[in-house]
Amino acid sequence: MVDLKAGREEFSARFFVESSYPIERVSEVIAGEQSSGTFISLPGESAELNERSRARVVSIDPLPETTGASLYSEFLSRRNPSDKYYRGEVAIAFPTANIGNNIPALLTTIAGNLFEIGEVSGLRILDLELPERFAAGFQGPRFGIEGTRALCGVHDRPIIGTIIKPSIGLTPEQTASVADELCTGGIDFLKDDELLIDPTYASFDARLKAVMPILHKHADRLGRMPMYAINISGSIDEMLRRQDAVLAAGGTCVMLCLNWVGHSAVEHIRKHAQLPIHGHRAGWGALTRYPQLGFSFEVYQKIWRLAGIDHLHVNGIQSKFWEPDDSVISSAKSCLAPFAGIQPLMPVFSSGQWAAQAPVLFNKLKSVDLMHLAGGGIIGHPLGIAAGVQSMREGWEAAVQNVPLEHYAEGKPALSAALQKFGGV
Amino acid sequence: MVDLKAGREEFSARFFVESSYPIERVSEVIAGEQSSGTFISLPGESAELNERSRARVVSIDPLPETTGASLYSEFLSRRNPSDKYYRGEVAIAFPTANIGNNIPALLTTIAGNLFEIGEVSGLRILDLELPERFAAGFQGPRFGIEGTRALCGVHDRPIIGTIIKPSIGLTPEQTASVADELCTGGIDFLKDDELLIDPTYASFDARLKAVMPILHKHADRLGRMPMYAINISGSIDEMLRRQDAVLAAGGTCVMLCLNWVGHSAVEHIRKHAQLPIHGHRAGWGALTRYPQLGFSFEVYQKIWRLAGIDHLHVNGIQSKFWEPDDSVISSAKSCLAPFAGIQPLMPVFSSGQWAAQAPVLFNKLKSVDLMHLAGGGIIGHPLGIAAGVQSMREGWEAAVQNVPLEHYAEGKPALSAALQKFGGV
Repeated sequence: MVDLKAGREEFSARFFVESSYPIERVSEVIAGEQSSGTFISLPGESAELNERSRARVVSIDPLPETTGASLYSEFLSRRNPSDKYYRGEVAIAFPTANIGNNIPALLTTIAGNLFEIGEVSGLRILDLELPERFAAGFQGPRFGIEGTRALCGVHDRPIIGTIIKPSIGLTPEQTASVADELCTGGIDFLKDDELLIDPTYASFDARLKAVMPILHKHADRLGRMPMYAINISGSIDEMLRRQDAVLAAGGTCVMLCLNWVGHSAVEHIRKHAQLPIHGHRAGWGALTRYPQLGFSFEVYQKIWRLAGIDHLHVNGIQSKFWEPDDSVISSAKSCLAPFAGIQPLMPVFSSGQWAAQAPVLFNKLKSVDLMHLAGGGIIGHPLGIAAGVQSMREGWEAAVQNVPLEHYAEGKPALSAALQKFGGV
Repeated sequence: MVDLKAGREEFSARFFVESSYPIERVSEVIAGEQSSGTFISLPGESAELNERSRARVVSIDPLPETTGASLYSEFLSRRNPSDKYYRGEVAIAFPTANIGNNIPALLTTIAGNLFEIGEVSGLRILDLELPERFAAGFQGPRFGIEGTRALCGVHDRPIIGTIIKPSIGLTPEQTASVADELCTGGIDFLKDDELLIDPTYASFDARLKAVMPILHKHADRLGRMPMYAINISGSIDEMLRRQDAVLAAGGTCVMLCLNWVGHSAVEHIRKHAQLPIHGHRAGWGALTRYPQLGFSFEVYQKIWRLAGIDHLHVNGIQSKFWEPDDSVISSAKSCLAPFAGIQPLMPVFSSGQWAAQAPVLFNKLKSVDLMHLAGGGIIGHPLGIAAGVQSMREGWEAAVQNVPLEHYAEGKPALSAALQKFGGV
């Protein structure tokens, strides 16, 4: 990824591009728009300026043409109306000197005005590659998978967790009461809903004050501290103060609504935080659900990995959300895959999860480095919360030992009851 | 917007919704998912809990059905495959007590997981209404239109500006030289490209140091300080330091790449900044270009208005971007329109602008409260930069006086030459 000719260090991004103009032409427009190439040059300076700052098209892989535009563009309607739209995957290399270790600059370069270019009727960022030396200038996760496991006291199996429900509306005392039940049941991890931050009737401070004694009580009993991802999202000053309050109270995790807190805020919390950052992706659907626009999860997780979060939500398989299972698994794999020397993220599966999803997940993911959050699968278990947690663990034991669930459930009331109530996969 | 029955203060959001289920049903799913309604309730507590936290569907305006889904959903394919998709506009009211004056909480509520709900095959947030008392708890713009005009010394006409080009690649000395030419030509406002933040060969500090003496030189001559929106985007610590450096050097504006710095960061800079915040929307296309997903500009500008920026880009008419002119004008109007007692934003028109667009813009917008940025229309003017700036002012004089451009150009070499070179509208 170093352009030897120009003697410069580069990073590269790969895009899906669609246009009524040939992809070669549009790729040059994109490379120009996102660097120094679309304007009159200064006399005598252009070669040198281009060498230091101009992006270059590295490769173009054509895809089959289509007859309709994915996205409307008045520019194309006026200048190049067509019943043929070219498509391709385009890799573009940018000099790292243009941006430095600045995430807003990185995103403005790979995901800025290019989505609005008149010549494109489809544009999606698919991947991002950084040289390791350059990537090392970003913070990356502080705790990651191993640090999280150490704080949870859970090794060699998934971290089993849940979300405190109802999502929002509980008083601090009710929240503590639900947490108490969950910890009594042996849960490893519990979290606030992403909606729950600082409502007037259950402020962050009141919630922390009510829940922490419960966690300590169970930590004494269990010999490990249940991890509580308390949602600290808000202003910079609030988030810093809340992180400190969680740390002082003996908590072991903070949660952020990544998209709506934003990149500079997450980096700032990472810089100051002494606890793992549980990243919720609320709003992500708007960035990804139309396949010819926006972001792939691959790029999304890489950016947040650079910013320094530790856990990232990936939906669940067979969930209540729109996303196909293959897409969920692919997201989790990308969290676990190597990226420019930055340590992996712990993927968080949630929504409609229960014990029988363990073998499916394990067969596809080939890893136990994950958080598996079940709501109804734990709280709705016919033998109670403890049996719900137990059934999740037994599901994973069966998965890892490659024993069919029905066999493994023999003599195990928790898993048996789960299979009976929630049905086969 | 107060639900008297429940005795609670509410805000509301309006959504476009599409589904193979009836819109009434899906609206309840959305209201539940985004508040406390999708889970088993605590015995004896549910009525009280719902009163304080449950969102309610206020109205549903049906739209014509379609035969195809706008967005794929595996959930719908499995559970409710159909060749009929219902559509409607849905207003949902939420208790303000759920979120407080917390922008990440507001966005997580109105633009969070709802985009991923399995039951929807299309979802876009169209509008947001807040009670004035509640809105007053957010910072809002500090300078707005009047504060910006006062710092620019420009009244009763648009602020005429440009973007220093090439976008990226100039040395600090070259940047200063371009700024010198522009100020000599009488420009009111100049800005960095959104890509230009802190490249190794033209760091923020070197750029500020090189450009500020030029601005002071011209301020002495002009009796007004040309406003330079220098891009300070980056980490929280960098942005605060840079804002202070701009202020100390006598600068009058800072620029932020809003989406990639993020909401909490922008609020933090607003809290500490003593200069207007010029908001660039790089990346906005990803959030809006598919009409059945994401955000309307109406909501987007309201959120950034709450966060406290002063200027916001809206593209130009007849620009190089995809966007139809009506959409651009509608965006600018929404920046200028009243919103819950929060002062308006100054809309910034740019991309492919020149003098002859003034009458078109004025006829549609009925306002001169805007920034009009021209690149080629100023720098590419056949009689030079000063004539380019002059031609923009003359274009606006003609517009406001309702005199046809060709008549107004008589005896005015700058406007005449612009009309001759760039052609009629």
